Amino acid sequence: MKVPHLLLVAAFALAAASPLSAKMMTPPAAATKATAGIRIDPTYWWVGMKNPKLQLLVHAPGVGTSAASLASYAGVTLEGTQKLENPNYLVVNLNIGPNARPGQLKLTFKGAKTLNYSYELRARNTDPQRTQGLTQADFIYMLMPDRFANGDPKNDVVKGTRAPRVARDSMYARHGGDLKGIANHFAYFKQLGATAIWPTPIVENDMPKASYHGYAVTDCYKIDPRYGSNAEYQQFVKDAHAQGLKVVQDIVLNHWGSYHHLFLDKPAADWFHQFPTFTRSNYNAFALNDPHGSKRDYQLFNDGWFDTTMPDVNQSNPLVSTYVIQNFLWWVESTGIDGYRIDTYPYSDPQFLMAFGQAIGDEYPKLAQFGEAWEGTEAEQAFYAQNILPPVNGFKSNLPGVLDFQISFAISDALKTENGDLSKLYHALQADWLYVDATRNVPFLDNHDMSRFYSVIGEDFNKFKTGIAWLLTLRGTPQLYYGTEVLMKNFSNPDGKVREDFPGGWAGDKLNYFVARPGQAGEAFDYVSKLANYRKTHPVLSSGKLMQFIPQDGVYTYFRYNDAGECVMIIANNTKDAKKVDGTRFAERTDGFSSGVEVVSGATISDLKTLNVPAHTAWVVELRK
Amino acid sequence: MKVPHLLLVAAFALAAASPLSAKMMTPPAAATKATAGIRIDPTYWWVGMKNPKLQLLVHAPGVGTSAASLASYAGVTLEGTQKLENPNYLVVNLNIGPNARPGQLKLTFKGAKTLNYSYELRARNTDPQRTQGLTQADFIYMLMPDRFANGDPKNDVVKGTRAPRVARDSMYARHGGDLKGIANHFAYFKQLGATAIWPTPIVENDMPKASYHGYAVTDCYKIDPRYGSNAEYQQFVKDAHAQGLKVVQDIVLNHWGSYHHLFLDKPAADWFHQFPTFTRSNYNAFALNDPHGSKRDYQLFNDGWFDTTMPDVNQSNPLVSTYVIQNFLWWVESTGIDGYRIDTYPYSDPQFLMAFGQAIGDEYPKLAQFGEAWEGTEAEQAFYAQNILPPVNGFKSNLPGVLDFQISFAISDALKTENGDLSKLYHALQADWLYVDATRNVPFLDNHDMSRFYSVIGEDFNKFKTGIAWLLTLRGTPQLYYGTEVLMKNFSNPDGKVREDFPGGWAGDKLNYFVARPGQAGEAFDYVSKLANYRKTHPVLSSGKLMQFIPQDGVYTYFRYNDAGECVMIIANNTKDAKKVDGTRFAERTDGFSSGVEVVSGATISDLKTLNVPAHTAWVVELRK
Repeated sequence: MKVPHLLLVAAFALAAASPLSAKMMTPPAAATKATAGIRIDPTYWWVGMKNPKLQLLVHAPGVGTSAASLASYAGVTLEGTQKLENPNYLVVNLNIGPNARPGQLKLTFKGAKTLNYSYELRARNTDPQRTQGLTQADFIYMLMPDRFANGDPKNDVVKGTRAPRVARDSMYARHGGDLKGIANHFAYFKQLGATAIWPTPIVENDMPKASYHGYAVTDCYKIDPRYGSNAEYQQFVKDAHAQGLKVVQDIVLNHWGSYHHLFLDKPAADWFHQFPTFTRSNYNAFALNDPHGSKRDYQLFNDGWFDTTMPDVNQSNPLVSTYVIQNFLWWVESTGIDGYRIDTYPYSDPQFLMAFGQAIGDEYPKLAQFGEAWEGTEAEQAFYAQNILPPVNGFKSNLPGVLDFQISFAISDALKTENGDLSKLYHALQADWLYVDATRNVPFLDNHDMSRFYSVIGEDFNKFKTGIAWLLTLRGTPQLYYGTEVLMKNFSNPDGKVREDFPGGWAGDKLNYFVARPGQAGEAFDYVSKLANYRKTHPVLSSGKLMQFIPQDGVYTYFRYNDAGECVMIIANNTKDAKKVDGTRFAERTDGFSSGVEVVSGATISDLKTLNVPAHTAWVVELRK
Repeated sequence: MKVPHLLLVAAFALAAASPLSAKMMTPPAAATKATAGIRIDPTYWWVGMKNPKLQLLVHAPGVGTSAASLASYAGVTLEGTQKLENPNYLVVNLNIGPNARPGQLKLTFKGAKTLNYSYELRARNTDPQRTQGLTQADFIYMLMPDRFANGDPKNDVVKGTRAPRVARDSMYARHGGDLKGIANHFAYFKQLGATAIWPTPIVENDMPKASYHGYAVTDCYKIDPRYGSNAEYQQFVKDAHAQGLKVVQDIVLNHWGSYHHLFLDKPAADWFHQFPTFTRSNYNAFALNDPHGSKRDYQLFNDGWFDTTMPDVNQSNPLVSTYVIQNFLWWVESTGIDGYRIDTYPYSDPQFLMAFGQAIGDEYPKLAQFGEAWEGTEAEQAFYAQNILPPVNGFKSNLPGVLDFQISFAISDALKTENGDLSKLYHALQADWLYVDATRNVPFLDNHDMSRFYSVIGEDFNKFKTGIAWLLTLRGTPQLYYGTEVLMKNFSNPDGKVREDFPGGWAGDKLNYFVARPGQAGEAFDYVSKLANYRKTHPVLSSGKLMQFIPQDGVYTYFRYNDAGECVMIIANNTKDAKKVDGTRFAERTDGFSSGVEVVSGATISDLKTLNVPAHTAWVVELRK
């Protein structure tokens, strides 16, 4: 998520004014068997989890002073309770032993009045199609659910929310897109060659404004009703899986929205990093591992707020850490999603990040996890993924991969100027030596926080094809931002400009790109589709090894190859002049092959020893014996 | 040494034409007790070295087919001999035991005719002033001996050399500078505050042209006669030490000059990397640790020639490796120098580099060693120094430090544009986390291969002072390039433009900057001198810890401080506007201090809580209680 430029101080003032207000909360729709006036998170749980421990956060007026008890239940014990600063909360620690069976736990809270709660323990879902994770064979389509397609106009305006309106003419308001809208276009993703969908966060953002982006969560256990219900999300994931599409959930560990129920009525002051006056993060991840750094810069980075409406969650509080970790075990188990994209990864407490990665990975070893580490150097990016380095300041990332901003910057830099520098892209790949496994990274061209790729490269269609050719043939699991495949444009100032509605997503849209893509938009779609579908059927492009050659004379060449003797050459002339390239330089990879076929155009490359590459052209060449 | 842009193919053709020619060589002047027609390297040796093994490379017509023997000598044994491809060479392996005493070894080579050689074993020099190494307290003055000062016009033209002329009007010819010229100005260095001298290589470069730079060595055991004799160099080091000045020798491991006696008459073809036609290095150190790299790119990098006149030495040949290592043990032992600056460090065989560092470090643990690793990223630079990383491709550098190009690039980038980006400098320091000890690095502003700093920054005197302030207060051992202190200018195209004669170095020079520095040249000298001498007397600037704060609003601030309660603040406003800086941000370092004194101007900074820093100004502020 991008560093904000606007100060929306009003929301902070509101939040700061009610540090521990005892505002009543309604239990989320997802809670089952709830007793009026009581909310317990997690809203339900399962038997047979690897970790038998379960921390319940109980909220009810005065519950903190009550005595909690559990009616006898085979295999389940109440290990203890913990009072919090706010008397409306009580922590109850349970142990769900290996022999416990699904059922209802009877919890009783005896205080000024007695409260009863029936807490559900479910059976785990053993469907092997759930939580497959991602591999390099996947191709992720990233979209903003509010802006992609409106499948259910009934949920556009939801009564009781803080912004009950849609306004497609405002880039800050909700536009009405939803889960149903995404599901309506599963066929489109498949036609494009995508195999996974990453919507920006779909959990409740009940904020008074600009909540469409989803990064200001107000209820960790509830799908935003403008997108659908929890049940609809479960069905969405199931339907996607049935279509061969995986689902990545976009999550935020660092902050919540300032209307989050746990911020409006805080369990304790130390559940958030708070300051006498609004204090912003310095957005400087380098502070974490700067041997010369100041404590102040480090604390501001980690504890300062990402924005006025986004209180910084204090995950160094063990209760908070457990609350967050359980929440994200809950989403996997309740839905069967395939991966987590972790927003603002470096901003959270480092020890918490390690505990989070460990706990999630222990329970769901197949689940993909990749983080946003929008940092400025190769080394710093690698620092936030599993790398070959020893721990620094007690931190060693266990995150399998990161969004590969270095690749993104390098591709843009190479293409945005005439005869652009190719060495950055070469260096970005070379820096893979710092990772345990850089194939777990996610390369991309643009996203919701960045200027759209087609605009960055000056709307040059040849350069567009080069960027797509690189994206879909480099190592890692590529990600495409919705609309890039049909040449959607704009610079991200403000962000709303790069978050426009996908044409055809709304009934009555003049253009419907799902059905017909006129002119170059169609050519662009076809180029992506052809290459992505080739990639799907030719695993050498995903599981093959990569060998790159030093860029020379404006031409960058690499190969994907495997032990089965398959080999694809990707050669890009990034200059305005045709180039005659001495192919004998690549003998290590071309020996044994005599010709090739460019996989998108179908053109034959008859001579591998002398390659005549036209100006601004990338070829993806399947080599032939 | 900079990547060359010119192809001087003629010299290569000559060299390639005589791969094993049996051209006779004259023994170097340094050889003692030589027998006519025989040359042995090392030219002499010592008793009591830690490593008892000594490999003699014997050259004489037909010596390769002779039987070598050693007259009985207490503690010394002849362990064996080894024939080489060229019959004019023989390797003799000796063991100099711990009880051996200084004296003359009588070697006999019985062949078609019998040759006798008296080989000298010397006592080691135990003067504790020798080989002190460098610490952060040092300040290195780097110069080109041919271009600095001509102390002995008698050695300007040396008969028998391949370029017996001087021509001060040609940037490619020798100008006549020499060791005596440097020694004549020891007082100048001291006045400037320098504590160490680094001349570019002073070993024989008997090349037909452009040999003044010294990086094309033709005899590893001989000072270039245009600079002086071996004895004069020994005296030079001794005299420098007596003045409190250390000496760094600039050495080249990767290549020799194409008129090197061992290239003109090769011991064996595999002493050099040779190709059917001239093959240039790709100058791409990234190839060494590219997990996706090709063998070809790697071999070209390591084995390709640096230039047509610079054959690439094959240090993976164990005989060559030992030859080179012994040569650089020899220079330390025979002179007492304090450090090695290692040219083109990454270009040599990686296993050899490790063996070299180990052997030199074992024998001379105090000797400074820093390498030139002119690479493009923080991680890549760190890869070539002692770092916290595991070995990659079998290589783990044991080089204590490197020339800090990242710092140099960052300072230039910050200063060369209006409101230049300060984050690169912040990042360059932050990247110290990758090193075992980044204080062993050598920061600098410019050198003989780069455009002169004052030109790079647009001849802006305020920016010059900022650059100098950073150079002399950052961690590491700073290096200044001759003439920068008096604002010498020019861009390095061609290199000769930044290698001009120091004004006053030659009798009759119109300007003599050693004596009088008119106008801003004088101000510049005084600024450097004042700060360097302050640095000398205030170890907090060299041995103190460093704490930096994130650059904000065009102002970059860091501190040097120690446990004794000393603290110096370096604050630089790199914008065209005066800045009012909130000093409370630095409370971690300023608490307990109430004011400060800017150490160059003497101005009092009375309020540390609000710092009014003028446009384009760096302050070095000693904090006061």
